[in-house]
Amino acid sequence: MKIIKGGVTAPKGFLAGSTSCGIKKSGKADLALLFSTTPCVSAATFTTNRVKSGSVVLCMQRIARGVSQGVIVNSGNANCCVGKKEIKDAMEITDAVSARLDIKKDLMLMASTGIIGRPLPLEKIKSGLSALVKDLSGSNGTSFAKAIMTTDTVHKEIAVQINIKGKAVRLAGAVKGAGMICPNMATMLAFFTTDAAIEKEALKQAFKESIYDSFNKITVDGDMSTNDSAMIFANGRAENSVIKKKAKDYFIFLEAVKFAAKELSRKIILDGEGGTRFVEIIVKGAKRELSAELAARRIANSNLVKTMIAGGDPNWGRIAAAAGSSGADINPWRMDIYFGKVLVMKNGAGTDASRPLLLDIFKKKEIEVVVDLKSGNKSSRVWTCDFTEEYVRINAEYET
Amino acid sequence: MKIIKGGVTAPKGFLAGSTSCGIKKSGKADLALLFSTTPCVSAATFTTNRVKSGSVVLCMQRIARGVSQGVIVNSGNANCCVGKKEIKDAMEITDAVSARLDIKKDLMLMASTGIIGRPLPLEKIKSGLSALVKDLSGSNGTSFAKAIMTTDTVHKEIAVQINIKGKAVRLAGAVKGAGMICPNMATMLAFFTTDAAIEKEALKQAFKESIYDSFNKITVDGDMSTNDSAMIFANGRAENSVIKKKAKDYFIFLEAVKFAAKELSRKIILDGEGGTRFVEIIVKGAKRELSAELAARRIANSNLVKTMIAGGDPNWGRIAAAAGSSGADINPWRMDIYFGKVLVMKNGAGTDASRPLLLDIFKKKEIEVVVDLKSGNKSSRVWTCDFTEEYVRINAEYET
Repeated sequence: MKIIKGGVTAPKGFLAGSTSCGIKKSGKADLALLFSTTPCVSAATFTTNRVKSGSVVLCMQRIARGVSQGVIVNSGNANCCVGKKEIKDAMEITDAVSARLDIKKDLMLMASTGIIGRPLPLEKIKSGLSALVKDLSGSNGTSFAKAIMTTDTVHKEIAVQINIKGKAVRLAGAVKGAGMICPNMATMLAFFTTDAAIEKEALKQAFKESIYDSFNKITVDGDMSTNDSAMIFANGRAENSVIKKKAKDYFIFLEAVKFAAKELSRKIILDGEGGTRFVEIIVKGAKRELSAELAARRIANSNLVKTMIAGGDPNWGRIAAAAGSSGADINPWRMDIYFGKVLVMKNGAGTDASRPLLLDIFKKKEIEVVVDLKSGNKSSRVWTCDFTEEYVRINAEYET
Repeated sequence: MKIIKGGVTAPKGFLAGSTSCGIKKSGKADLALLFSTTPCVSAATFTTNRVKSGSVVLCMQRIARGVSQGVIVNSGNANCCVGKKEIKDAMEITDAVSARLDIKKDLMLMASTGIIGRPLPLEKIKSGLSALVKDLSGSNGTSFAKAIMTTDTVHKEIAVQINIKGKAVRLAGAVKGAGMICPNMATMLAFFTTDAAIEKEALKQAFKESIYDSFNKITVDGDMSTNDSAMIFANGRAENSVIKKKAKDYFIFLEAVKFAAKELSRKIILDGEGGTRFVEIIVKGAKRELSAELAARRIANSNLVKTMIAGGDPNWGRIAAAAGSSGADINPWRMDIYFGKVLVMKNGAGTDASRPLLLDIFKKKEIEVVVDLKSGNKSSRVWTCDFTEEYVRINAEYET
């Protein structure tokens, strides 16, 4: 596997375009289109929030068949909490795009991100479609990644090339993240493209497994979006022998999707709203996986833990307290806590770890917290960022 | 019922004292003692965190009999995460106090609050006991309330008088709160005194019900402490005819405890770390109480909702999103949301509520958010505060 350039248009047969139609007051690009010149096998996962954007509802219906050809993305408006009209609006926009691209209506998906509760500015979007379609090109991967941003400070993309029985196969992805990133999924839109030829069920399985291990293991602020969507399009243009479930090739492909998804997850955390540090929480030694999971997520979502890390202050007691209140099956007199390799709590009691050494660890950009419950062999890993005043600033002023 | 002065020493037969023994670097009072000159019927509730302070563990054992006579409180150190030694330390300190007061050892309780993971400075505390006991007086209620503070900016106390069959009965309480306030309980220490004569089981029941409806319904930051303790002491010095469960007098007493507990909960939220607004979240129209509870707590703990309120920005979509992700049984197309009396979302869609009107509501110190699920008749209420940069500042710098 090697990393290549080009973002979502690196795989053969994918075009991307973007434009600014006036949803964002800033005048920045707010409409993006990803399109395969031939129909794709596709798979997707969506937010589990009961309140879902109309764009998500439409996609959930359309993706069921496992075939699609593109997605239109608008940033700046979530198309959510405006009533059933939001589904009709998503349909109207995707229909208009499909007509321009001359493809069947139900092959076009839609994703939206931005403020909740305001109707989509339909006329603005429709008037932007001509420019959007005209902008389609095989070298616009990066501008696609930029057009889907909201409070993101950097665009996030990755592309890799693998070898499937002698054929070069490419896989790429672009995401937007920033705030409201929480399992399961995040306010996060993720778009993956690949020119692999792969069976529908194999694609679905590989995608599901990769999402579970990446986007579902990150959290910025514990809030769960109404719009989370992750989708993958495989158009088969690499002309490799078709990848089937459980075949050797499948695992090569799976590894590539996992790698790309993890890399993009990492980029989301590194760009977490107001975050200044990348924090890996590992809970191991649990009797059951659920305990490890509960404890890791509780620690990762604890405001007290996250502000402590922002302050560069190794107050590990907050980690013990968060683990203890997580609902996980924990024996406090057995619990060990490490910062990096340094043992700071052993069997529920603080060690004499040197404070200057700890302060040094906390000066680093990346911090690893390990909690060992010493009660079994199950573990869980969650990535998060610290929690700074900047987060509050961003989110107190998001609308105005 | 009338409000009276004097804090926890307003009821007859209660003495309080405080001193500074050097746990707090600031030199402020960090040791407090509450003492009844005669043994009390007593009840208590504690944190459900698996990681518990040794002071809590000791109290849980001692309170079981339902009789005690006082409590020593130290602020500045949580006596937690230092190993089993913390239970021994709590025992050593309470034994020393009991000896000075010439009461049975197991009648003395202990509460601790402050940093986790550092052994209690036993010698400092023991050397402070003489001054502490000397300071005991029937007019020191307020200085007791001050000595238990950590990041609190104001002391919090209340005292009321009720009439039980012609006898004046007094009930009072003091709390410390500030951060880490989350159901169930809070990093919150609460001490109630009453000179009522009341049966053990009646006191237990009234206290439990009052706590459920007050301290368990508030949240500052979703974190749960290792040290939460709420206790009540009833010494019978009012010489009223003994209050029994389900008797008419019981309900007069219950009303007083509920009132005091709610008032103190309110004071905790008003003094929430960095909080500038008091926010009441009401979820009604739920099919099951659990749904109402889940939705109300999720909204109250959402960083996005809380930063929105801090920013004075009526972005109600975040409330809908939080409710939707709470696990509550919600039909998004039926949900209504109000700010105060103003309907901002009806059946899952925004209304044309006037923005200037909403901005006005958000300028107020107290904000009411009502979510009507219109699916049943169960409801829940949670109190919280907004979430400001100041919270992050306080908690990033807590230790250093």
